[in-house]
Amino acid sequence: MPLPSAAPQPRSLLVTGTIGIDTVETPTARAELVLGGSASYFAAAASRLAPVRLVGVVGEDFPAHHRRQLETLGAVDLLGLETRAGGKTFAWGGKYLANMNERETLFTELGVVADAPPRVPSAFADSALVFLGNTHPAVQIGLLEQLPKRELVVADTMDLWINIAHDELVHLLSKVDGIVLNDSEAAHLTGVRNAITAGRRILGYGPKFAVVKKGEHGAVLVHRDGVAVVPAFPAEESMVIDPTGAGDTFAGGFMAHLARTGKTDFETLQTALSWGTVMASFTIGAFSLEGVARANATDLASRYQAFARHARV
Amino acid sequence: MPLPSAAPQPRSLLVTGTIGIDTVETPTARAELVLGGSASYFAAAASRLAPVRLVGVVGEDFPAHHRRQLETLGAVDLLGLETRAGGKTFAWGGKYLANMNERETLFTELGVVADAPPRVPSAFADSALVFLGNTHPAVQIGLLEQLPKRELVVADTMDLWINIAHDELVHLLSKVDGIVLNDSEAAHLTGVRNAITAGRRILGYGPKFAVVKKGEHGAVLVHRDGVAVVPAFPAEESMVIDPTGAGDTFAGGFMAHLARTGKTDFETLQTALSWGTVMASFTIGAFSLEGVARANATDLASRYQAFARHARV
Repeated sequence: MPLPSAAPQPRSLLVTGTIGIDTVETPTARAELVLGGSASYFAAAASRLAPVRLVGVVGEDFPAHHRRQLETLGAVDLLGLETRAGGKTFAWGGKYLANMNERETLFTELGVVADAPPRVPSAFADSALVFLGNTHPAVQIGLLEQLPKRELVVADTMDLWINIAHDELVHLLSKVDGIVLNDSEAAHLTGVRNAITAGRRILGYGPKFAVVKKGEHGAVLVHRDGVAVVPAFPAEESMVIDPTGAGDTFAGGFMAHLARTGKTDFETLQTALSWGTVMASFTIGAFSLEGVARANATDLASRYQAFARHARV
Repeated sequence: MPLPSAAPQPRSLLVTGTIGIDTVETPTARAELVLGGSASYFAAAASRLAPVRLVGVVGEDFPAHHRRQLETLGAVDLLGLETRAGGKTFAWGGKYLANMNERETLFTELGVVADAPPRVPSAFADSALVFLGNTHPAVQIGLLEQLPKRELVVADTMDLWINIAHDELVHLLSKVDGIVLNDSEAAHLTGVRNAITAGRRILGYGPKFAVVKKGEHGAVLVHRDGVAVVPAFPAEESMVIDPTGAGDTFAGGFMAHLARTGKTDFETLQTALSWGTVMASFTIGAFSLEGVARANATDLASRYQAFARHARV
């Protein structure tokens, strides 16, 4: 029988979000029908640091080799990956402009994502750390209510829900511990352009912290107990192959660092920002999940050390 | 007689640039006929860390209380401040828009700055570290040729010279050790939007390093020996009173750290970025030089510690 211990223990981590099929064009290359979706990217990054439970839906058309790609990640429990008979998998197409910082969405086919939301399998009901990928805030609330043992819930959101589901989003904010969003979304939600002050306003809705992502300019953590800022990993132009999924893998690295340490205090969240940054730096270096999926423990440690050197104050 | 020592010794620091009279409007306040100009801001910041020699011209109309303000900084040697009989002092008026990040120039009256450039007094000819404030690159070259003992020269520049004096600017770049410019200017000069890659291209013109300033998003140092990135100090909206001079005080803190340590290696330049960041954070908190001028040694040390805490990786 294990002795009770005061030391923090690793926590279980669950992610909900989309699993999709992406087609991505950049000025110099194109990737067709590759594995994508917020939950796929998140899980690929998180699995580098800690086990992760994935909850999401795909259609009958979901290719076997994409399922194998998720299986090959190793630390991803696919028990919550539901294949819906007769349904079509979420599909997204996007095109990056010459500066690689702006993109156009070419198409979005919701498929099974437009039907009933995924359900949390009973074996996952004891999950401690939860990341609610971007979807309608009412669906996010429905998901977190299936997780009675949750200790820390972080949600992602986007402009669409700020526009068409503002009240539900505010309700969601009162039920989560943290929120992750882009600087433009934070400004849109609060009417404040300054990322720190926008984050502070968001805390007024209830969460303990907000992570404001600024893409190539890094990220800001506004927490009841303090403020942390990190630059992005200094990536040369030639290093950026496909920015798709950078934000989702940032979140995956961030949450997985909390899961493996079993701690959720400000200091740990601050270090988690750097792990998110490191994961995103791998993601942008290849199409689909490849960049982060092929990073081994040595790659991660040396990229983290490089980041700490580049960003030393 | 002092023994010869291998330890680095502090170096003399000289700045050339404008000394002007500013009128600044923000959405909530207005400051009329206050001390401004790149060399004033630079000197105010640098003087917090090291003695600094100022070279610039003013007109006969330069108010006695502005001269006293410069004298009160203490560590600024005003021997190179020339008052030109019959001339008018450089004057600038600007207005910040609601987000405090964009500004309109309302007027620029060059006055004595449009006449012959300032001259370096012979007592300053032995200066080791030199900062050439933004002006025509041919004038910057003329100034550095008056400094035969120069060990490290850093120049500022702007879009105007990239447009109308491109060849002279490229010539200047072959004669300096470092360049400081905004991200939009770096993109304009090189045709590359990525700040790291733009900085790398600039090294191709000759300098050992380029500092690319990104305002509220921090700064990047691209050096032959490495790359460093810093976020800006996380300033709440209410902390930003007037951003004028932030870039010049950034440069002043950066150069003064080199002067006081007597070192110019990559590691020292990286730490100097943080001192620049700290100085800029004081500048934006008040109109004119007030924010940085009233910061004492304790304020500086505690702001630096706060920055290191906020930006810990």
